[in-house]
Amino acid sequence: MSEGHSAAVPAGRTVTACVLIIGNEILSGSTQDLNLTFLAKGLNAVGIRVTEARVIADDAAAIIAAVNEARHRFDYVFTTGGIGPTHDDITAQAIADAFAVPLVLHPEAKRLLEGHYPPGGLNAARLRMAMMPQGATLLPNPISRAPGFRVANVFVLAGVPQVMQATFNELQHRLKGGARLLSRSVSCALGEGTIAAELGALQSRYGDLEIGSYPYFRRNDFGVTLVIRGTDRARIAAAIDELKALIRTLGGDPQEGQAEG
Amino acid sequence: MSEGHSAAVPAGRTVTACVLIIGNEILSGSTQDLNLTFLAKGLNAVGIRVTEARVIADDAAAIIAAVNEARHRFDYVFTTGGIGPTHDDITAQAIADAFAVPLVLHPEAKRLLEGHYPPGGLNAARLRMAMMPQGATLLPNPISRAPGFRVANVFVLAGVPQVMQATFNELQHRLKGGARLLSRSVSCALGEGTIAAELGALQSRYGDLEIGSYPYFRRNDFGVTLVIRGTDRARIAAAIDELKALIRTLGGDPQEGQAEG
Repeated sequence: MSEGHSAAVPAGRTVTACVLIIGNEILSGSTQDLNLTFLAKGLNAVGIRVTEARVIADDAAAIIAAVNEARHRFDYVFTTGGIGPTHDDITAQAIADAFAVPLVLHPEAKRLLEGHYPPGGLNAARLRMAMMPQGATLLPNPISRAPGFRVANVFVLAGVPQVMQATFNELQHRLKGGARLLSRSVSCALGEGTIAAELGALQSRYGDLEIGSYPYFRRNDFGVTLVIRGTDRARIAAAIDELKALIRTLGGDPQEGQAEG
Repeated sequence: MSEGHSAAVPAGRTVTACVLIIGNEILSGSTQDLNLTFLAKGLNAVGIRVTEARVIADDAAAIIAAVNEARHRFDYVFTTGGIGPTHDDITAQAIADAFAVPLVLHPEAKRLLEGHYPPGGLNAARLRMAMMPQGATLLPNPISRAPGFRVANVFVLAGVPQVMQATFNELQHRLKGGARLLSRSVSCALGEGTIAAELGALQSRYGDLEIGSYPYFRRNDFGVTLVIRGTDRARIAAAIDELKALIRTLGGDPQEGQAEG
């Protein structure tokens, strides 16, 4: 694993990730999660597809079960939340338990924290942030210094979006992905039901692409945004051309959205 | 089940829900999910705790597996997404498969759709929205008329937030919950590590409450928001008083946030 964060992946295979959002505050509705969207985009930018996400409570058994299921089913697992200095930060211990290794003081993490706090500031609570599952690799955090960490294919990140994002940005380009999922979208003021039959026929002709239909309802306005995703730019372009033509045939005015990827 | 949407629940037990967000657009990061937060708050308002959520792809096997796991583990399951008229709307069939019942035309759903579209407007694609798992109960949708539905403890809602919310608002007060989770919060400009030891001790003295610590980092500002959750208003008030006192002892200025619930 010296050249990067993952073993080689056979060409052509989709490289997958599962995101585990850990935190009672998300499940209670008091905090709106923003980490999934950020990670989904950031992972896709390096060819890794988030194919499942879970939001789980600050509960050791729930974290251990979810990590152990996910790390076997997906190429990568990213967790967010629960790695701070307070009593409700239980993710590091849960990851250690999931891998059946002890939680130990990581000397380099301790050194990073010592450099961040004024003399005497690294109290017992803060030192908990240097406790890592044995064998963990640090993931530097340029904001508050307390590092995330990696054990095998599980990447453990902070829940605070700024800290999570800064940590992810440092590691992103060492991840080994596959083909990027590209997408283009077209919107029109037709009802979904008006276009559904033709759209289904288009999907049948382009089995290698994924065509999504997302209706929107605004105050004086409704319509549908159609998104075509795939890994072959030319195939997407061909499908988009057909889609625009069929929208015009049905009396609509296709408006292309901003391309992603 | 004639008086409401669920069987009786023993007094004192936490009534749980799992939210299943179905949609490739959420997993790709192209759409920010807003449904979990809405459902979490709306369910808590009637005493139902969301204890897990999953975001899953528009993939029949994934939906069937998630629904079958969740409906046995939680009192309620709420799904969002995939019940429109287009080829990528596969949730109704997946729910039928999960319950091993056929997907059949629901006459009342058909009647609702007939009333919504102009003559001839209810084409074959739109009629798909009247196909329901056998035995399903309709969940009216006052926005676009296409109903959601319920099978046993599984509530199947649209993905479009306005439609999902309008449907949920109609059914919310027929749900049978337990004690509501109440919460109060206090913020201060102390570092999490400064308050961690005292906060842990407070949590130990209030084992019936759940104390969460959420640091924030703003441009010229950092601090922590402390949230105390529980079902007993007086106990929460007592813990909040102790929390404010300990923040002052540590040199902080406690600012109470808006109470929830």
